[in-house]
Amino acid sequence: MNAILNLTVEGQGLYDITHKVQALLPGSRPREGLVTLYIRHTSASLLIQENADPQVLADLQHWMHRAVPEDESLYTHTQEGPDDMPAHIKSALTATSVSIPLLEGELALGTWQGIFLWEHRHRPGPRQIIVNVLG
Amino acid sequence: MNAILNLTVEGQGLYDITHKVQALLPGSRPREGLVTLYIRHTSASLLIQENADPQVLADLQHWMHRAVPEDESLYTHTQEGPDDMPAHIKSALTATSVSIPLLEGELALGTWQGIFLWEHRHRPGPRQIIVNVLG
Amino acid sequence: MNAILNLTVEGQGLYDITHKVQALLPGSRPREGLVTLYIRHTSASLLIQENADPQVLADLQHWMHRAVPEDESLYTHTQEGPDDMPAHIKSALTATSVSIPLLEGELALGTWQGIFLWEHRHRPGPRQIIVNVLG
Repeated sequence: MNAILNLTVEGQGLYDITHKVQALLPGSRPREGLVTLYIRHTSASLLIQENADPQVLADLQHWMHRAVPEDESLYTHTQEGPDDMPAHIKSALTATSVSIPLLEGELALGTWQGIFLWEHRHRPGPRQIIVNVLG
Repeated sequence: MNAILNLTVEGQGLYDITHKVQALLPGSRPREGLVTLYIRHTSASLLIQENADPQVLADLQHWMHRAVPEDESLYTHTQEGPDDMPAHIKSALTATSVSIPLLEGELALGTWQGIFLWEHRHRPGPRQIIVNVLG
Repeated sequence: MNAILNLTVEGQGLYDITHKVQALLPGSRPREGLVTLYIRHTSASLLIQENADPQVLADLQHWMHRAVPEDESLYTHTQEGPDDMPAHIKSALTATSVSIPLLEGELALGTWQGIFLWEHRHRPGPRQIIVNVLG
């Protein structure tokens, strides 16, 4: 069974989508199944990360900016703007799909884990994630 | 159900395997299932990336070469050649498995997404990917 | 079906958990199913890597230490110690979930592939992985 999660992002950043994913799960879901998230983009990605301290999210982004600078002199694919090629590289370094077991019918997230969409472009816009449930 | 995708690579590079994966899917596949790709190697990996501009693929590789140099002075595992340890690191930074939902019986790839085998060694040779279909 | 793998780590390092995962698989498992591992933490991750030469594991860790230094001046989230924020970044760059097909009832690992828990914190402690089997 698939559900579709349509989101609007406001630009670069980490968006906590945990509650939106939970709300999409069918009431009749298996107690020991598997939920797979798949993002249909190549300049945004998925991340399971700490949901407690917002400084963790800020530091994650700062590290990525240092590692993958928005500096056009480093890239040949520049016609879509200085943030486009870095966005592709950041996506390649993180996840396009993540699978989370269902444990007693709930996502088996750890105590401090949240599900994030990591948007790597500056411009606002729509993003789509497929939520697949099996079991 | 599993299918096996045997490939021959010509050396380092990103190989678009989207059509080969699609051709392996069984005709009787579920309309809302899950396709998981698994690569049986530790010096090649899987990537979902933009399939439109070949410069994106070139820039991805250039970034990786800068981040993980083929410089033997950086590593102790050097007996398999200067590209072997960097290949292991590049594999660790990208994906060994990727799961893509089936949406109305087709891989739920986004408009610009292709499936790539990312070969990190210079030498040509055979590579094997398992294509698992569930649902 | 889910099994729970409880582990105690001694601090930073790569721990080969292949045999522990295999021992948890149910005897009545499907011959062509899918095994998904999910780690319930944000400062430890999962990795499929070469299991032959321990120098590969040492070099992987050295590369990560150079790329993500334990240097508090680089981060704002420092109250949990100088290794905590680097551990979150290293986890983001590697995998929280990995899916491995069952081929004739066995994990479809390649000849040189092992399954590792990659602990990114220095302190010893417990870690938990969910092993989901479908098919």
